[in-house]
Amino acid sequence: MSYNKTPSITAETINPKVKIFNYEPCGEIVRYAERLQQEMDENPGSLPFPEIIHCNLGNPQALGQRPVTFFREVLCLCDNPALLNKDEARALFSPCAIRRAQRIINSIPGKETGGYTDSRGVKSLRQAVADGISARDGYPSDPDDIFLTDGASSAVNMMMQILIRSHEDGILCPLPEYPLYSASIILHGGTMVAYNLTEDRDWSLEIFEVKRCLEEARSAGLTVRAMVVINPGNPTGQVLSITNQEEIVEFCRKEGLVLLADEVYQDNVHVENKKFHSFKKVARSLGYDETDLSLVSFHSASMGFYGESGRRGGYMEITGFGHDVKDQIYKVASVTICPNIAGQILMSLVMDPPKLGDESFEIFESEKEKIHSSFWKRAKTLEKAFSSLEGVSCNNIEGALYLFPRLHLPSLAIKAAEAEGVSPDVFYTHRLLDATGIAVVPGSGFHQVKGTIHIRCTILPDEDKIAAMIPRLKAFHESFMNKYRGSEPYMKDLRR
Amino acid sequence: MSYNKTPSITAETINPKVKIFNYEPCGEIVRYAERLQQEMDENPGSLPFPEIIHCNLGNPQALGQRPVTFFREVLCLCDNPALLNKDEARALFSPCAIRRAQRIINSIPGKETGGYTDSRGVKSLRQAVADGISARDGYPSDPDDIFLTDGASSAVNMMMQILIRSHEDGILCPLPEYPLYSASIILHGGTMVAYNLTEDRDWSLEIFEVKRCLEEARSAGLTVRAMVVINPGNPTGQVLSITNQEEIVEFCRKEGLVLLADEVYQDNVHVENKKFHSFKKVARSLGYDETDLSLVSFHSASMGFYGESGRRGGYMEITGFGHDVKDQIYKVASVTICPNIAGQILMSLVMDPPKLGDESFEIFESEKEKIHSSFWKRAKTLEKAFSSLEGVSCNNIEGALYLFPRLHLPSLAIKAAEAEGVSPDVFYTHRLLDATGIAVVPGSGFHQVKGTIHIRCTILPDEDKIAAMIPRLKAFHESFMNKYRGSEPYMKDLRR
Repeated sequence: MSYNKTPSITAETINPKVKIFNYEPCGEIVRYAERLQQEMDENPGSLPFPEIIHCNLGNPQALGQRPVTFFREVLCLCDNPALLNKDEARALFSPCAIRRAQRIINSIPGKETGGYTDSRGVKSLRQAVADGISARDGYPSDPDDIFLTDGASSAVNMMMQILIRSHEDGILCPLPEYPLYSASIILHGGTMVAYNLTEDRDWSLEIFEVKRCLEEARSAGLTVRAMVVINPGNPTGQVLSITNQEEIVEFCRKEGLVLLADEVYQDNVHVENKKFHSFKKVARSLGYDETDLSLVSFHSASMGFYGESGRRGGYMEITGFGHDVKDQIYKVASVTICPNIAGQILMSLVMDPPKLGDESFEIFESEKEKIHSSFWKRAKTLEKAFSSLEGVSCNNIEGALYLFPRLHLPSLAIKAAEAEGVSPDVFYTHRLLDATGIAVVPGSGFHQVKGTIHIRCTILPDEDKIAAMIPRLKAFHESFMNKYRGSEPYMKDLRR
Repeated sequence: MSYNKTPSITAETINPKVKIFNYEPCGEIVRYAERLQQEMDENPGSLPFPEIIHCNLGNPQALGQRPVTFFREVLCLCDNPALLNKDEARALFSPCAIRRAQRIINSIPGKETGGYTDSRGVKSLRQAVADGISARDGYPSDPDDIFLTDGASSAVNMMMQILIRSHEDGILCPLPEYPLYSASIILHGGTMVAYNLTEDRDWSLEIFEVKRCLEEARSAGLTVRAMVVINPGNPTGQVLSITNQEEIVEFCRKEGLVLLADEVYQDNVHVENKKFHSFKKVARSLGYDETDLSLVSFHSASMGFYGESGRRGGYMEITGFGHDVKDQIYKVASVTICPNIAGQILMSLVMDPPKLGDESFEIFESEKEKIHSSFWKRAKTLEKAFSSLEGVSCNNIEGALYLFPRLHLPSLAIKAAEAEGVSPDVFYTHRLLDATGIAVVPGSGFHQVKGTIHIRCTILPDEDKIAAMIPRLKAFHESFMNKYRGSEPYMKDLRR
C-alpha cells in the first residue's frame, strides 16, 4: 500500500528547544568508561589498570556509600506496615523506627503509603520539613510554603516553567555551574544570563560582576527575573560567607529578582571556619520578610551524609510569593499529580532525624560522623594530590562533594587536542582514563570560564580507592606534562 | 530604604502557558468535600449524612484498597537489604519475595537501591518490563525501548515536550478526556485537536469523526503530530474492539501520526466479552513493524489491582522512532536525572508478578481475584443504580474504574444553575454532596461534549459504602427532579 504519508517524527522535527539544550553533567566520559569496563570484563588484564575509579559521578550509593540505617528502617516499615504488628519485627527494627513509621502511616489519609497525595506532598511530612527548617534557621517555616518534589531537579524545572515566558526572560546563573540550570532554562525557552565566579578568590561570588551581567542583559532588552546561587557550590566547592550572602540578598531585593537558592549541599560543609547558612535565615536576620524578597530554597535527599539520590526526594520552600502565584505553582505540580511517597518520607527523615533519647540516636550520629569525617579525609587527600601536580591549582574544598582543579597545560597538549577536534580538558580526561582508569569530568561540562581548563573530581570513591589512585594520577600527570613539553616519551602504561 | 524595584513575580507576570491551562481532574469538589469534612469533625451530627463517600477520587489505596502483599514485601526488602541475611526475616517474608529482592539488588550497579540510575531506569527492571510486554502481546519487546518514569503522567508530559514546537502543532485528543492531556498540551504550547467519542455507541471511537477533526485542523493550518487514545477509557469506561483498534492503527499510519496509547487501565477490564489488546500487538498482528508506525504505550503502577498511585511507577514503550529521536527523549528524561527507584521496582513487579510455582503465587492470585471481582460487583451495582434514575442514562462500564452517566435535567434546574453562575453538572454535584455526602466529579472537568451533562463516579469506595450510598443517591435524585419539575419541595435532609 502506498500512502500519502506526512513525515513521521525525526530529530529534525521535534521541539527545537529540546534539540538545543545540552545536559550531560558527566557526559561522554561515562560512556567511554562503560566501554572500557566492558573491555576489561571481556578481556581481563587487557587494560593498564586493575579497575575504573569513578571520580566522575555525584552518586554516593553507587560508589559504595551505605545508606543511613534509621532512614531505611522507617522506609521499609512504611512499605510493609503489616510488620508493625509482628513480634518478630521487634528483633529487626529499632523501637524509634517503629514509632516513626507508625506515626507517618497514621498521618496519611487512608493510612496507606500507596495513594496519591496532595500535589505538594503529605501535610504531616511537609510539617516535618518545615519544623526541620525552623530548627535549622531559628526562623519559622510554614508547611504550606513547602512543596515536596521528586528530587531538587524537578523543583528547579517547575520554577523555570513558572518564571520563563519567552527568550526575552533571563535568569542569572553562575559559571561554572551545575548544568541542570542552563539545560532547564533553554528547555523552557528562556535565556541564561551567566555571571562568573572568581576563581582567584576561592570561587567567590562578586556582586559587581553580577551587577555588570544584569545591566548588560537589561541593555540587550532582557527582563531578568531571577538569580540562581549554588551554595555550597557545585562544581566549585566554595561555601559563601554571610557577608557575601547578605550582599546577594540586598542585590536581589533591590533589583526585584527572585533568588533561587540551590542549597542541596547544606549538609556537606567540610571546613571548621565555615558554616552553612540558608538564604532565608540571612534574609530574616537582615530584617527582611516575605514582602521584601521572593526566595526559593531547594534541597534534596540526594547528597549530604544520606546520599539517597535514586529515591528522588526533594523539597522547595517558597517564600515571598503571593497566594495567586503559589496556586499556579500548585497547578504545575499537579500535572505530575504528586511526588513519590518514598521520596517524601525520606525527605521528612532528613529534616527530622533521630533526636537525643531516641534509641537510634547513637547509631545515627555515628553513621553520620563516620561519613562526614571520611569525606573530609578524602577531600584533603585529593586536594593535596592535585595541588602537588605541576601546573595544577586546586580550590580549597569547603563544601559539597567536588574538587574543581585548574590545569595549565603545555601549548603542545592544547595543539594536540585541537588536532583531535576536542577541547583540552576533554583531551586530558580521556588520556587520564586510558592510562589509569580514573574517570573525572571535563570542566566544559560545567561551562567553565572560556579559555580555562578544569576537571571536576568527586570525593566519593572510598578511602582505599582514593589512596590507590593518587600515585597513578601523579605518575600519569608527570608523564603527560613531560610528553607535551617534548622532553620525555608519553607513558602509556602505568602497570607496575 | 526605597529601591527602584522592578515588579516582583505576580500571577500576571508568570509564564502565560501556566496561567491558561486548567488541570483539576477532581477540582473544586475536592476542596468542597474537605470543607464539609472539617465541619463534620468540628460539629459532629451537623450535616445530614454520617460520612463523605468519595466517588470522586481515582485513588484506590486512599479509599481502602490494600496493596498486594508480594509487591510490598519485595519493596520493603529492597529498602532494607540487611534483612535478607537475617533468620528472623524468614518468618516475615515469603521465600520468593526474598529471592526476588535479592535478584533486584544484585542487578543494580553498586547493589544499593539509593543511587541514581540510568535516566531510563535500571536495565534489569526495564528488561523485566519488556519481558512482561512480550509475554502479554506475543511479540518481542526491547528493554532499550522502555523508559521507566515517575508514573504515566511524567511520560505523557515528556512526549508532549518532545512533539510540540509551537501552537501550530496539534495533538488529537478524545472528548471526554482525562484532562492531563489538554493540560499538558497547553502547558507545552501546543493546540489540542479534540475529537468526540460517540456516547450513543458506548463511547466508541469513530474514525470518520477523527478524520473530520484532523482535516479541519489541517485546513486551519495546524500540523497535527499525534493522536491520543485512552483504552480502556477514562472517564468513559469503554474497551475498544480489535476492529476499532485496527482502524486507528491504519489511520495513524496513513496520516503519519504518532499514536499515543494511554493503556494504564489494561488490568481493569470487567466484562467477559472484551479483552485488553495493546496497540502494539494490534499493529504487529496487522504486519506493521517499526517502520510503519510510531507508537508510544503508557502504563503505570497506579491502577489495575495494585493501585500504587502514590509510588509513581510508570513506563512508556517507544517503538517506531529513530535512534536520534530516542536520544533526545533520553536527554529530556535526564533533566530530572532518573525515575524514583521504588516506583521502578514496583513497575517491574506489576509486569513480572509471581508465577505458578512461586510460594507467593496463590496468595497473589487470590488477592488479585478478590479485587477484580469486587470491582466488577461495585461497577454493576452502581451502573444499575444510575440507570434506574429518572433522566439518567449510564454507560456500560467495560473497563477502567469509572462510570460516566449522562443526566437529563429539567430546564428549571438548568436555569437555577445559570442563576448561580455555574454549569448544571457543577450545580447537581454540589447539591448531591450537600444532601448525601456523596462526592462525584462534574463532567465538565473531563471536557464533556458541549450541551451535555455528565458526572464521573468511581467504583473505588468499598462494597459496604456503595451499598449504603445507593438509597441516598436515589432519594436525592428523586427529590432533585421533583423540585425542579416544580411538583414537590426540595429534600434538604436525608437523615432517617
